[in-house]
Amino acid sequence: MKIFVCVVLFAATCCLNFASSTTYEPTWDSLDKRPIPSWYDEAKFGIFMHWGVFSVPSFENEWFWWNWKGAKIPSYIEFMKENYPPNFEYADFAPQFTAEFFDPDSWADLFKASGAKYIALTSKHHEGFTNWPSVNSWNWNSVDVGPRRDLVGDLAASIRNRTSIHFGLYHSLFEWFNPLYLKDKEGGFKTQDFVRTKTMPELYDLINNYKPELIWSDGQWEASSDYWNSTEFLAWLYNSSPVKNTIVVNDRWGKGTPCKHGGYYTCQDRYNPGTLQTHKWENAMTIDKRSWGYRRNAPLSDYLTIDELLKTFVTTISCGGNMLANIGPTKEGTIPTIFEERLRQMGKWLGINGEAVYSSVPWKHQNDTTNPDVWYTAKGGKVYAFVLEWSSSIKLGSPLATSSSSTIDLIGGARNLTWEPLKPSGVKVDIPAWSGLKWCLVLRFNGFE
Amino acid sequence: MKIFVCVVLFAATCCLNFASSTTYEPTWDSLDKRPIPSWYDEAKFGIFMHWGVFSVPSFENEWFWWNWKGAKIPSYIEFMKENYPPNFEYADFAPQFTAEFFDPDSWADLFKASGAKYIALTSKHHEGFTNWPSVNSWNWNSVDVGPRRDLVGDLAASIRNRTSIHFGLYHSLFEWFNPLYLKDKEGGFKTQDFVRTKTMPELYDLINNYKPELIWSDGQWEASSDYWNSTEFLAWLYNSSPVKNTIVVNDRWGKGTPCKHGGYYTCQDRYNPGTLQTHKWENAMTIDKRSWGYRRNAPLSDYLTIDELLKTFVTTISCGGNMLANIGPTKEGTIPTIFEERLRQMGKWLGINGEAVYSSVPWKHQNDTTNPDVWYTAKGGKVYAFVLEWSSSIKLGSPLATSSSSTIDLIGGARNLTWEPLKPSGVKVDIPAWSGLKWCLVLRFNGFE
Amino acid sequence: MKIFVCVVLFAATCCLNFASSTTYEPTWDSLDKRPIPSWYDEAKFGIFMHWGVFSVPSFENEWFWWNWKGAKIPSYIEFMKENYPPNFEYADFAPQFTAEFFDPDSWADLFKASGAKYIALTSKHHEGFTNWPSVNSWNWNSVDVGPRRDLVGDLAASIRNRTSIHFGLYHSLFEWFNPLYLKDKEGGFKTQDFVRTKTMPELYDLINNYKPELIWSDGQWEASSDYWNSTEFLAWLYNSSPVKNTIVVNDRWGKGTPCKHGGYYTCQDRYNPGTLQTHKWENAMTIDKRSWGYRRNAPLSDYLTIDELLKTFVTTISCGGNMLANIGPTKEGTIPTIFEERLRQMGKWLGINGEAVYSSVPWKHQNDTTNPDVWYTAKGGKVYAFVLEWSSSIKLGSPLATSSSSTIDLIGGARNLTWEPLKPSGVKVDIPAWSGLKWCLVLRFNGFE
Amino acid sequence: MKIFVCVVLFAATCCLNFASSTTYEPTWDSLDKRPIPSWYDEAKFGIFMHWGVFSVPSFENEWFWWNWKGAKIPSYIEFMKENYPPNFEYADFAPQFTAEFFDPDSWADLFKASGAKYIALTSKHHEGFTNWPSVNSWNWNSVDVGPRRDLVGDLAASIRNRTSIHFGLYHSLFEWFNPLYLKDKEGGFKTQDFVRTKTMPELYDLINNYKPELIWSDGQWEASSDYWNSTEFLAWLYNSSPVKNTIVVNDRWGKGTPCKHGGYYTCQDRYNPGTLQTHKWENAMTIDKRSWGYRRNAPLSDYLTIDELLKTFVTTISCGGNMLANIGPTKEGTIPTIFEERLRQMGKWLGINGEAVYSSVPWKHQNDTTNPDVWYTAKGGKVYAFVLEWSSSIKLGSPLATSSSSTIDLIGGARNLTWEPLKPSGVKVDIPAWSGLKWCLVLRFNGFE
Repeated sequence: MKIFVCVVLFAATCCLNFASSTTYEPTWDSLDKRPIPSWYDEAKFGIFMHWGVFSVPSFENEWFWWNWKGAKIPSYIEFMKENYPPNFEYADFAPQFTAEFFDPDSWADLFKASGAKYIALTSKHHEGFTNWPSVNSWNWNSVDVGPRRDLVGDLAASIRNRTSIHFGLYHSLFEWFNPLYLKDKEGGFKTQDFVRTKTMPELYDLINNYKPELIWSDGQWEASSDYWNSTEFLAWLYNSSPVKNTIVVNDRWGKGTPCKHGGYYTCQDRYNPGTLQTHKWENAMTIDKRSWGYRRNAPLSDYLTIDELLKTFVTTISCGGNMLANIGPTKEGTIPTIFEERLRQMGKWLGINGEAVYSSVPWKHQNDTTNPDVWYTAKGGKVYAFVLEWSSSIKLGSPLATSSSSTIDLIGGARNLTWEPLKPSGVKVDIPAWSGLKWCLVLRFNGFE
Repeated sequence: MKIFVCVVLFAATCCLNFASSTTYEPTWDSLDKRPIPSWYDEAKFGIFMHWGVFSVPSFENEWFWWNWKGAKIPSYIEFMKENYPPNFEYADFAPQFTAEFFDPDSWADLFKASGAKYIALTSKHHEGFTNWPSVNSWNWNSVDVGPRRDLVGDLAASIRNRTSIHFGLYHSLFEWFNPLYLKDKEGGFKTQDFVRTKTMPELYDLINNYKPELIWSDGQWEASSDYWNSTEFLAWLYNSSPVKNTIVVNDRWGKGTPCKHGGYYTCQDRYNPGTLQTHKWENAMTIDKRSWGYRRNAPLSDYLTIDELLKTFVTTISCGGNMLANIGPTKEGTIPTIFEERLRQMGKWLGINGEAVYSSVPWKHQNDTTNPDVWYTAKGGKVYAFVLEWSSSIKLGSPLATSSSSTIDLIGGARNLTWEPLKPSGVKVDIPAWSGLKWCLVLRFNGFE
Repeated sequence: MKIFVCVVLFAATCCLNFASSTTYEPTWDSLDKRPIPSWYDEAKFGIFMHWGVFSVPSFENEWFWWNWKGAKIPSYIEFMKENYPPNFEYADFAPQFTAEFFDPDSWADLFKASGAKYIALTSKHHEGFTNWPSVNSWNWNSVDVGPRRDLVGDLAASIRNRTSIHFGLYHSLFEWFNPLYLKDKEGGFKTQDFVRTKTMPELYDLINNYKPELIWSDGQWEASSDYWNSTEFLAWLYNSSPVKNTIVVNDRWGKGTPCKHGGYYTCQDRYNPGTLQTHKWENAMTIDKRSWGYRRNAPLSDYLTIDELLKTFVTTISCGGNMLANIGPTKEGTIPTIFEERLRQMGKWLGINGEAVYSSVPWKHQNDTTNPDVWYTAKGGKVYAFVLEWSSSIKLGSPLATSSSSTIDLIGGARNLTWEPLKPSGVKVDIPAWSGLKWCLVLRFNGFE
Repeated sequence: MKIFVCVVLFAATCCLNFASSTTYEPTWDSLDKRPIPSWYDEAKFGIFMHWGVFSVPSFENEWFWWNWKGAKIPSYIEFMKENYPPNFEYADFAPQFTAEFFDPDSWADLFKASGAKYIALTSKHHEGFTNWPSVNSWNWNSVDVGPRRDLVGDLAASIRNRTSIHFGLYHSLFEWFNPLYLKDKEGGFKTQDFVRTKTMPELYDLINNYKPELIWSDGQWEASSDYWNSTEFLAWLYNSSPVKNTIVVNDRWGKGTPCKHGGYYTCQDRYNPGTLQTHKWENAMTIDKRSWGYRRNAPLSDYLTIDELLKTFVTTISCGGNMLANIGPTKEGTIPTIFEERLRQMGKWLGINGEAVYSSVPWKHQNDTTNPDVWYTAKGGKVYAFVLEWSSSIKLGSPLATSSSSTIDLIGGARNLTWEPLKPSGVKVDIPAWSGLKWCLVLRFNGFE
């Protein structure tokens, strides 16, 4: 058994490659000791997808059902009253989840072009609708109703046939309105009927059938990991499952586990601490600033510009995190053009600047001492500066030339830029005008420390 | 504990009323010893209702799903192709099961007017859709999808508030396409995942919540009663359930049980042996000769006329059976007018002739020795003859006057009809013309044997 | 040119057969002189059909659109609110007018079996939706939306291929919500944009294409026949149209014309005066007592029984009228079974008693002098009595035997019934019992006056 | 009466402001003499919107109906077969044209932010569906079916309340499948039933009710302007209509009229000659390169980038044209985000560079003599160069400094750029680096000729 171990040391993440014969116990103590497979740390950029029956109303956000029927938020009630017959219930949306334009090959090609190294698709969100033909979710899954397709399986196949992207799945432990869950909950979570007949059989089914390399767990917060049987599942996952060597998981496995137990930390949605972290973490964020699911009526101002997205990205990776950028596919099975544009912009930028990103490690400085909007990574003795705004020249406080033959290159542009040392420390670098320079430019420092 | 016991003796069913302290074992030997509560034998006439998602396509019959997707019968495939989008699946019919006109009070009033003494509604047919909010059938029940109502509960309440009709439920053990059932079946019924998580929890739920006095079990034939846990259920039902004193069940509890084990015998659909039976039985038949579920395009010729229906009825009760006449409500929640007409015709006839029917017992002759289209019952020393066709007079071979003061009445019409004895035996009775005489007339013989 | 002329003389309608070279002027004086073709008087029984987009909501009656949006009747508003999305408009019903089961051959066979001699189908009701592909009603006709069929043409073909029934069409002059009509109306009917571009082009189109033998005009009451150009149309119809020799029309051609101008008189809906009329008339009535269009939730009590229907029929023909009995087909294209039953009951009765009906004329008495529930017709020297209720014998005041060899027959039953004269006048007739006698019996008087 | 007249003289369009008492004859000779109101020439940038029932299938393009049912293109037939019931017709799409998110105020705000000075909305495309409540298009307009709104009126109101944008309307003369049009066409256009009852009444209605300042006529090509009565309409429009002073029309009024008669020339779709024209013209083009109507499944690569859009724009205005950039709203009433982004990018760019655009005139050179990708306009003695690609410096052949104090500014950036004359002619200009420079930069030449 071989495993890649990554450890954050000083200002770098070291990944070791070693044979392991560890057997994990179903306890957090034991499970937390498992190293995170190195592919994950090297990946830096992943794509998150929230897709489900909520993509049909496509209104406000993917919590539609809860906000309408649970929280009874007036805007949702009004929306339904104005546009649907009385007695129209959430399940009635499912037949409209048509996915007639879903072309997993073109999705795979787009993800590849974006420069992402992993993806995570909602296999099942809090609504309980499974995007694969779960035997435990009869008539409430994507083959029995709506798409008539194994969305999870079809996407997995395309990803694996056409790319080297790591395939991952989001999975919600709880389901807002599942009557079995509600019964367990009403009884103070002393029974586990829901866990035994729905959520756990499905999670095992997902691993065995689709062999994902990442499980993005969620929906854990109302009950302890004891109720969920999470540690048993993870012990099986690490010891015996078909993906035991490569699987990566996050930290949402029970009340109190986020930022504390499991695999990498997500802590909270859109987590972006701005400082170096000691445990591998991920900034799971949304390109649509206000929702994970697609919103048909979202104005442009709700979407991050590519400049904002790149700023989020470079601040994240400078501090040791990965960015998992979320997009919301439509009920028709398309990826809205504005998301496609952001992903292709990311890909265009990474196509030029990938060397400063993939497999990079945090530098000793995360951002510049005098110009805090400039962020750094390091790799193979080189330091990379991510410059979000510039004019004819810029001044930086952190890089120190180790010799007079130290050089600075504009990645994708001119090499050997004109520069001069500053007093007491730092450099001034001249930036040449060029219509090709659209977004965040990256400078490579050779012979700097 | 009090129970009413009915025994068929010679040519009469005797019902005894006694206190019971029997405890039943979960074996057929023990269970088959339980006497059938007397209300059932006295009732004679019940109404069966097949109502479910199949009422939406309302095409050919209630086996629509199976015939389309299981047996792949061309006419079903063609019907779907001509009228629905490709990819339309059976579950897509459910939202159209609207029941907007369902008025259980008016159903109850109609049933009362029909003279029926018990009813049986499909709580769940082979499609698995439950007509009550089963926690084991999320998003595939009448509250989550379609009617948005507890059809079982609403009808039970109206029946109990407005009538003294006994409320019963049909329940299918198996479900054609339930993936858990299919898994059990594929494995030769060695696992019971389906029984434990779906069919039995639901059956217990039905008894506990709705307290039906009759369970019309079905869908048993693919597996033994061991697989279904039927004897455990029946032992509980007879020993401990809230309806242990009044519950009546039929004989469909596992492969091989019909006509052999359980409560009353149904043997096969539309069972009508034409001779006296030694075990209480029921003729479960349909007013639409070709279907249990409603068919939107059924021509009049497919419905029994009231004359045909009455003929079926009198042949059934003459031989000790009950008639459970089936009607098919519509997806809108109405009872098609032609069914309403038949039921009201039954009620009109029973309003006049009920004394010859309710609580009657078979006579020594079931039909007449010389005029085999005339059928008999007996009650309180009187003999009743059901005459389906007549002209100015009729001749009967079976009734023998015990004295010269023996009399014959036309129920609902003239008393003391002119009659004379025939040689070697029998009587000739004069029938007076009357525009009020529409269907099967009933003669009451006083002082005949 | 040959025409059949019928004149009501004393107590009989005489029909003359003569060659005509009359040219009619577009004035009521001239048009009213045209004799009604004799086929119509001889027919006695016709079937009316109200079928259109109103068959989709199928609620309350065929005035749905007006009652909802024009009169704003609360029950309609409530019905829409409870069952449809807000903003659902009347035109949205049209795609649900599917007619998937419409089989005009089986309709024709049913009509033939009913004994009807003519039919009238709504070609267009007040909603303006045309049941044929009118070029003046684009996207609001049965070929562009809904049935995708020429309902008028398809039924006409089946009727003509399989029966000798006369094919007729109902046509509404006005359309509740046609904006061109509303504009004309707003201007006090001084403009005729609607008449010139919609209603008259369509009426000519109907005659030229489908060659109906009867036009049942309606929707005339808001404007004079001058606005409608009715007299021009009728002059063309009688002088030059392809059906000039056989066409029959009613009396609804402008404000004030009913019971006064046109062809036969309908006067008002369900007109049934109970006394002999001097002008040929029609009782256009409904089997569903409360509606012309089908109502999904009509209870049985709203339908005439066959006894009531026959009573209406015999009172009508006894007084010189025809009965046009209305049925409401469904949006699926079926004839509801209760209507089919009534029609087949009519046919069964007419199959036996037709000789007393077809081509009969009123007798000198319409109903009996001492037993007013008995009605009469006459034909070929015979008198026919329609007896609705009877016991072993009945007494009649009007028939007077002309000799001692005068006889009385029960049509379809025994000949030469026992009878005796009564003092001062009339007869007493013995009625034999017979299970075949279900409804209105008919006695034939030979040699009575 | 006052009119603004624009004449293209040498290399500039001169607009004169004068009182007119001209009366136009319904002949092309007379009508072609009318000067185009000056607002139009000054506007340069307009927004075109194709919105209609075709926005519902939103597949391939707005010719959906024709391509499916007229040309019978297999991909359309297949699309319908795979996604809709058989018998689903084009009119069935209309109820799904819901426009529930249509907010004309936000559209107006977006258009204002885009820098556009006029818009043109499809009032009616070739499908014949009117986006206003036309009395000549009953049940085939946006108030009777689908949106339930006067889309034309609601947008006009918002545009006028919130902006100074000129409101214009697209109108198709012909309708693919209007049966009245097809009848006229079948008869060789000798009858004009369609023109008299549909297309012309509607066009007059549009002018009288909504007072548009621009009519973008289309659908003319199958018949001569005599059939269409175009010259009568235009004479009325110019002489007597409520918009006679400000109305601008295009050149599509009959077979053979484009590029020859009417107002400004559109010649053909996406017309962009690349050289100076002698008659005012418009480049009506699409941001989605392949369709005018919205396509749900269009990939990003089908949309023009902002760089491409600006290139089209500057080549157009340099040659005296206006650019009318088309977007396709959705059936829900939203403007797809990718279109919104392009419009806001245009607005951002025009916010900086508008002085080089609005009211500008072509310069003596349309593009540069040595650097043909640089395009020019002129205004108020200044020359403007549009530079699509650059590095640290650029060389231009056309501008000649008139003195040594001539200066060059980067609009929105540094003034007084460093420049030097080139031999034999032209200038070299230094471009400073700046992260604010994203797209086409504009240089202002002061004292150049």
